[in-house]
Amino acid sequence: MKVISDDIISFFNPQSLAIVGASRNFRKWGAIILHNTLLGGYQGRIYPVNPGEKDIFNVPVYPRLSDIPEIVDLVVIVVPAQNVMSVLEEVQQLGIRACVVITAGFSETGESGRKLEQEIGLFARRHGIRLMGPNCMGLISMIPQRLTVLMPAIVPEPGPVSIISQSGNVGYSLVRALTRRGLGICRSISSGNEADLSTVDFLHYLGEDPETELIISYIEGVDDGRALLDTLKRVNRKKPVVVLKSGSTGAGASASASHTGSMTGREDVYHAAFWQTGALRARGIEEVEDFATVLCAQPRPTGRRVGVLTLGGGWGVLAADALERAGLEVVPLSSETVATLDTLLPPWWSKGNPVDTVAGMKEGALFECLKTLLACEYIDSVMLLGVGYGTVRGSAIKDSPYSDLYDMRKLGEIFIKADEEMARGIAELMNTFQKPIVPVVDQGIIDQRGSFVEALQENGILLLPSPLRGANALAALTRYGEYLSRI
Amino acid sequence: MKVISDDIISFFNPQSLAIVGASRNFRKWGAIILHNTLLGGYQGRIYPVNPGEKDIFNVPVYPRLSDIPEIVDLVVIVVPAQNVMSVLEEVQQLGIRACVVITAGFSETGESGRKLEQEIGLFARRHGIRLMGPNCMGLISMIPQRLTVLMPAIVPEPGPVSIISQSGNVGYSLVRALTRRGLGICRSISSGNEADLSTVDFLHYLGEDPETELIISYIEGVDDGRALLDTLKRVNRKKPVVVLKSGSTGAGASASASHTGSMTGREDVYHAAFWQTGALRARGIEEVEDFATVLCAQPRPTGRRVGVLTLGGGWGVLAADALERAGLEVVPLSSETVATLDTLLPPWWSKGNPVDTVAGMKEGALFECLKTLLACEYIDSVMLLGVGYGTVRGSAIKDSPYSDLYDMRKLGEIFIKADEEMARGIAELMNTFQKPIVPVVDQGIIDQRGSFVEALQENGILLLPSPLRGANALAALTRYGEYLSRI
Repeated sequence: MKVISDDIISFFNPQSLAIVGASRNFRKWGAIILHNTLLGGYQGRIYPVNPGEKDIFNVPVYPRLSDIPEIVDLVVIVVPAQNVMSVLEEVQQLGIRACVVITAGFSETGESGRKLEQEIGLFARRHGIRLMGPNCMGLISMIPQRLTVLMPAIVPEPGPVSIISQSGNVGYSLVRALTRRGLGICRSISSGNEADLSTVDFLHYLGEDPETELIISYIEGVDDGRALLDTLKRVNRKKPVVVLKSGSTGAGASASASHTGSMTGREDVYHAAFWQTGALRARGIEEVEDFATVLCAQPRPTGRRVGVLTLGGGWGVLAADALERAGLEVVPLSSETVATLDTLLPPWWSKGNPVDTVAGMKEGALFECLKTLLACEYIDSVMLLGVGYGTVRGSAIKDSPYSDLYDMRKLGEIFIKADEEMARGIAELMNTFQKPIVPVVDQGIIDQRGSFVEALQENGILLLPSPLRGANALAALTRYGEYLSRI
Repeated sequence: MKVISDDIISFFNPQSLAIVGASRNFRKWGAIILHNTLLGGYQGRIYPVNPGEKDIFNVPVYPRLSDIPEIVDLVVIVVPAQNVMSVLEEVQQLGIRACVVITAGFSETGESGRKLEQEIGLFARRHGIRLMGPNCMGLISMIPQRLTVLMPAIVPEPGPVSIISQSGNVGYSLVRALTRRGLGICRSISSGNEADLSTVDFLHYLGEDPETELIISYIEGVDDGRALLDTLKRVNRKKPVVVLKSGSTGAGASASASHTGSMTGREDVYHAAFWQTGALRARGIEEVEDFATVLCAQPRPTGRRVGVLTLGGGWGVLAADALERAGLEVVPLSSETVATLDTLLPPWWSKGNPVDTVAGMKEGALFECLKTLLACEYIDSVMLLGVGYGTVRGSAIKDSPYSDLYDMRKLGEIFIKADEEMARGIAELMNTFQKPIVPVVDQGIIDQRGSFVEALQENGILLLPSPLRGANALAALTRYGEYLSRI
């Protein structure tokens, strides 16, 4: 494997940037991409290039790359396909080393496009220029420059997650999903047709990138399967890699052939091979989101034995089903644990795992139950179902049209405060016991962003939106923990 | 099967209602349930009953049921378990026929509770009183009375979906999920321990209920499996039933035994039997939501052949994978269809199914592509991926800090208007061709509720939040369509 990190850091930390093909016409990507870069608050110097403009969005425009008063770190190309080569020639003459080619109309359009793509790839390699694309959607690199030079107008919070996507649109869906979940983005790479830099190269780079703690890779197909697997294996030891592999069915493979022109490979071979790399395979955008949620926040469990603590019986049954289906064990409680829980819960509690706290619980008992389960040597992780409803009930009381009556406002506050304390308690227990605590509550309640949700998030913990999704996320986290303990 | 509809209509259309055990202390369910009933705007007459209060929330309180100036249609009981029987005796003396017993502390708490439950069940049957519960969360019946006599403070929009849940909390999660999706609720029944009225009885009733168009049933277990299957089969011919069956694994069954005390039955037997009833089985709360979304809005397809129309290649590949995995066929396009699409799309479009419209499409072409696919005799349904981004892009341009420059505001409006027209066009085409059109877009964009989303919803069409979820929903809709055409 050649060392590429030095070459491609210019993509992710450019001090200056040129956009060739910048425009003020919003029916053209050259306008949208410049606009979105400004919108993101890019911290470097930005130079639009267009021979027919003086300024766009009050930013001075330069007729050609060579007119810019410095040698920029990164060139973003949005001119038509037939003009890309002449831009690359200028790039070469100026000694610039990094280009994002957003322009489409290459191998995805047929034989003549394929030829053009080979030519630019060859030219770049011959002159030591690295290309991202062509036919890509652009690039996000929030740390440190807040670079959002891409087609969709989206500005995520900076954070630990980086994405490599062989589809611009899927990459965009992933950024949106993770942002909505409350996860910050470090880099998002649309690798396009991969005329030069490939998914494997970017995986390698992000593996070394100190700002990236978790990598997500949407893959339709790669030329060199061996290199992909070797890279996944090496990187995944350092930080988790979640792979969304598509084109896995006949219909999908045929769709992918016309999309990226890639050979997607045989599903069974891929699956077995991925398994050995320790990379986590997600079945859809939702699972990427869920896996990332726990991988970013939670300690790595060392075994499959789960304790379930639930404020509602039905949620516990759904979770038990989902955990067992996902290969985890809803471990039976020891008589000691049952005895301890007996002191905390009403006599008719479930006396087993899931621990259904039932109604009538004393104040603070939930926290003590959680602590009891975490302290069990035979429990590796805990799912916590239905927390946060105190906040919902508290808000309903406090904001009720009847809240002037009785002590409703005060009581509402008490419920909300209790939940906030619970949230901080959960974070403390997670740190003390170094075991995962996966909290689950309805998406509708997460969306309300009550103080319970906020208090958890301040402590780095995000909620999962259903027993099923929580269970599958915990299973992925457990697979990763087991992989780490095996190597 | 005995005729129960006459008996139990009082639960769903009560002209008057007593809450026995009403309270002003918000640490008690008696306060919360009265409060939530008032909050929902119940259209009937409401009588709180409590010998120690004069009024609560400015509503006059009666010492006993017999002090109420009329014979109420429905009694809701929230007194401690040991006092329930004496309330039922009063109910019997007054000739009231319907009670919701919210009170817990019956069979779920052990032997003495089981005895008490048998006693109240026996008493009710002997005197022709019908019970919902005990140990239930209460009842929603939005049509026609806006009745929300239940523990959580939730007031859904009235609509076509009814829920029967053997877990109060799961029922609550379902109401919340459906509401969030934009679906209205007709009834939501927490059946509790089912001392008298059971899931089977409610299924039967909702099957006859003209206001209910779709039934969702969360089942842990039933006493009489044969009756359940017969009822499911009969009802499902009239309107779709979506079943969320839990307790299907060893861990789940054991959790369920301690939750509702029910024998959950053997998974393989259940699954085969459900299949024959034509009921749709959902794997989690998400699938209930997704299945309901398409079942409420979309025509029933008569076959498995799907056309996929996508504005992003990667979304199409994910959808093709998911459709094939779900048992549907991403059908090859005829040369006639390809020829028609050639006139609408740039020369390098995918030339196959999924139809990836790629960039460079002419205005209005997407609509024509959709029409072309729907008109194909060999296509039974269409998935439409990535629509609604015009609205997102339009809003980004219109609301940009740079929107004073150039024609940004005007152009933004043009993009938004085009999407609105597309939304109305989708609804028109669905009605014209009587084939399902399943539109998919990121949840984050649905959450923004742009005019595209609103225009679709005004026409009764709701969006699905990912290619995978859209594909699985379409597969369920297709199974239902096939079932209807088989019987």
